Amino acid sequence: MSGLFITFEGGDGSGKTTQVQLLASWLESLGKKILLTREPGGTDVGLELRNIVLHRKGALAPRAEALLYAADRAHHIYSVVKPALGAGTTVVQDRYLDSSVAYQGAGRVLQEQEVKDLSLWATEGLLPDLTIVLDAPAPYLRARISGDDRVFDRLEAEGDDFHERVREAYHRFAEVEPHRIHILDATQSVEDIHQQVRQLVSSKTG
Amino acid sequence: MSGLFITFEGGDGSGKTTQVQLLASWLESLGKKILLTREPGGTDVGLELRNIVLHRKGALAPRAEALLYAADRAHHIYSVVKPALGAGTTVVQDRYLDSSVAYQGAGRVLQEQEVKDLSLWATEGLLPDLTIVLDAPAPYLRARISGDDRVFDRLEAEGDDFHERVREAYHRFAEVEPHRIHILDATQSVEDIHQQVRQLVSSKTG
Repeated sequence: MSGLFITFEGGDGSGKTTQVQLLASWLESLGKKILLTREPGGTDVGLELRNIVLHRKGALAPRAEALLYAADRAHHIYSVVKPALGAGTTVVQDRYLDSSVAYQGAGRVLQEQEVKDLSLWATEGLLPDLTIVLDAPAPYLRARISGDDRVFDRLEAEGDDFHERVREAYHRFAEVEPHRIHILDATQSVEDIHQQVRQLVSSKTG
Repeated sequence: MSGLFITFEGGDGSGKTTQVQLLASWLESLGKKILLTREPGGTDVGLELRNIVLHRKGALAPRAEALLYAADRAHHIYSVVKPALGAGTTVVQDRYLDSSVAYQGAGRVLQEQEVKDLSLWATEGLLPDLTIVLDAPAPYLRARISGDDRVFDRLEAEGDDFHERVREAYHRFAEVEPHRIHILDATQSVEDIHQQVRQLVSSKTG
């Protein structure tokens, strides 16, 4: 018996946190055991690494950045996610390896395939059963988060060109893995998106 | 014009620090530009990672540990070592990728080859011109460091079996790469070892 592993992807402002919470509430109402988690930063070590990657001032070598995300992932999957899945718990995770491949690939220094290989090595090949991408144009997302009174991290501070390359990457991934990766239009209403999420999850649980 | 890249390997107590210093003094007396550095912890980011790997209390997933060492290495080589070599500086470094391969391989969870591949990816394939291994039996080294009044880190605290596997690994590496890797008997006098180090370095500078 292994739990279902569901990951959410999408830019800041896409409504990812809201959809994760709605899905968790619905699954709990069905009597499922749920674990909500995230990357980077899903463990104590991961929080330290997340802080190094996202908030330090000096430049980090691109391969060092990729390796830190992979280290966070290796520890999180090994110590949190796999034990939960093994106990039959449904794991709902905010960002996973598709984020690394899309964002680091969009940085144009590393190849998508080498970033993916690194994550697969880190996790001994663990792929989600279902990955839901909340998709919207970069200017739309920027408008939704620019009202927030907070300091942007390194990735949020990138320009629209960068975020459009990330978006295109997710669309390509969904073409390559249509059974795992599903794109939802994040400009729809919260309730409409939630209904589509329910349908996708139901299709995986049979 | 590229500087010579020299690395030292060997267990704690092998006299590595002393030999690095003696080599540096000799090279400086010859008018060479020198950079002394180390892994892990040769950069500010690296110091944070070194602290996570060596001194945290909870268990770290083996692949996470390997990825953190590789991240430290990627950032150090990219931001410190390659710029120095490019400027014609001789770089003398305390530990490099052979340490990762030997120690993590000796931990018996990861294969030596995958650890080496990870380091080579992290550094875009940078290998030293010369690697000097200061070799001694594990009980001999333990006797030399046990008088020190300090807390052992995670690797120092491993048993003699572990350290003997590390030692055997270095001997195998030297057989595979005889032009790069040279084993010196660390139970000799400081001055005898230093003379052998001089000969090896001279053989690389012509």
